[in-house]
Amino acid sequence: MSDDGARIGHLIQLLARLPGLGPRSARRAALHLVKKRDSLLVPLLKALEGVAETVAPCTICGNYDTINPCAICADPERQPGLLCVVAEVGDLWALERGGSFPGRYHVLGGLLSPLDGIGPEDLGLDRLTARCQSERVEEVILALPATVDGQTTAHVIAKRLGGVGTTVSTLAQGVPVGGELDYLDDGTLSTALKARRPVL
Amino acid sequence: MSDDGARIGHLIQLLARLPGLGPRSARRAALHLVKKRDSLLVPLLKALEGVAETVAPCTICGNYDTINPCAICADPERQPGLLCVVAEVGDLWALERGGSFPGRYHVLGGLLSPLDGIGPEDLGLDRLTARCQSERVEEVILALPATVDGQTTAHVIAKRLGGVGTTVSTLAQGVPVGGELDYLDDGTLSTALKARRPVL
Ligand SMILES: [Zn+2]
Ligand SMILES: [Zn+2]
Repeated sequence: MSDDGARIGHLIQLLARLPGLGPRSARRAALHLVKKRDSLLVPLLKALEGVAETVAPCTICGNYDTINPCAICADPERQPGLLCVVAEVGDLWALERGGSFPGRYHVLGGLLSPLDGIGPEDLGLDRLTARCQSERVEEVILALPATVDGQTTAHVIAKRLGGVGTTVSTLAQGVPVGGELDYLDDGTLSTALKARRPVL
Repeated sequence: MSDDGARIGHLIQLLARLPGLGPRSARRAALHLVKKRDSLLVPLLKALEGVAETVAPCTICGNYDTINPCAICADPERQPGLLCVVAEVGDLWALERGGSFPGRYHVLGGLLSPLDGIGPEDLGLDRLTARCQSERVEEVILALPATVDGQTTAHVIAKRLGGVGTTVSTLAQGVPVGGELDYLDDGTLSTALKARRPVL
């Protein structure tokens, strides 16, 4: 790379920060973009612009949408009193692709992780408790990954919500140990959702 | 995905067209971008904008740069009369990273492929011959992949350039069969370059 390094090199560095792309594949991706300037680079640029300008987290549930509250929170067909708690928006999307959950969601934006210094206040667990009370939520389904952090988070939330009288359940067997929700097939997710079991 | 599908779904489709990203990793990448709006999405957007506005193929050699002729073609320190022919700009970059080639380049933009209907005119082979004559090129090194298409292309170019009296050599052993230049380590490339051998 010569002087073009200034421009293209910077693009490669940013692309390498995307999950799934390493330094080499980022270089390939950058070259591909330059080569397909009009058919890919410019459309991608416009798509990023559109997302940057219009997509934001829903202030109620944390889902990403172009409207606030998001389409799910605003949907009158959604069953009130039923809330599914997920770690990330990608997990919410995975459940929506399954199409079998009739309630609304609450996105934590992460998991409790003492090692990484992520505590209850970082995930807004007080806000979740307050939401359950103000929306008179009857059942919270914890759709959290079957990892140590996921199960710690589930335990802490179950204890808090049990204290305010909300029924708390988790996804049933079907979620493989260490498995991330976003990578499961839709059928497995639906099954696990239907066979959910109470916690505590 | 709900209505956000219109915006984010479009972004996911475009990201999935990058080499190295499938539909699932494109979804992860899109979510990551929305989550890291200010620290990644906006910088990536600006980087793409910068590249789209300033980077273009060098009209002499086909390299991508913000100036035309590119920094390599314009560099007076480069040895005249020595030209390295590569299939793609990524291969040129790989050779430049090796840092052992003192001449200039010629990027074909592809390989002859009768099956895909890519013939000599698509690669501008007449332009390469004319360049060798007008620049009084003494030696052309063919740094093409060790694939069927790569070797076919090397053979056709060698015959054409032999006709106008240019010495033609190829990269020596060191390039693995079926190997793509961009994935080789820099040492292997340097070795193969130094041990190049004449064709025909
Ligand atoms: Zn919402
Ligand atoms: Zn050039």
